Amino acid sequence: MKAYVTVMLKTTVLDPQGKTIHGALRKSGYKGVGEVRQGKFFELTLDGTLDKAAAQAEVERIAREFLTNPVIEEFSFRLEE
Amino acid sequence: MKAYVTVMLKTTVLDPQGKTIHGALRKSGYKGVGEVRQGKFFELTLDGTLDKAAAQAEVERIAREFLTNPVIEEFSFRLEE
Repeated sequence: MKAYVTVMLKTTVLDPQGKTIHGALRKSGYKGVGEVRQGKFFELTLDGTLDKAAAQAEVERIAREFLTNPVIEEFSFRLEE
Repeated sequence: MKAYVTVMLKTTVLDPQGKTIHGALRKSGYKGVGEVRQGKFFELTLDGTLDKAAAQAEVERIAREFLTNPVIEEFSFRLEE
């Protein structure tokens, strides 16, 4: 089973990397983009030993404790067989 | 419309960040995780002026030219209304 975790800065937190990319896009003529925000993405390969509910709980714990800084970031994830 | 772009290191490229996280997980007792790979995630807000086909083409060009180093990375993306 695979778990895909996305970690983004909270919307209330400034994102200078995203702003820089947005600026570069506008300078290069891409006017159709209103905002860019950058985050992190993690692909976790899980043993087949966990059932879906256990995997769900474990990935949520991993995302909260290891992959996210809860002061400035928030996460979401999905599981795939 | 929103575009979500995921940029990952090619599978042939070593991922030291992922390896470090994997090591930390194993030391902390998470034995169910076989591999961790870290990538980048971008959320682009697009003007409503583009239709879906135009947005698809534009986001693909942006991902290829601005967000990805084609020597070591590969990207995927999806659009959402």
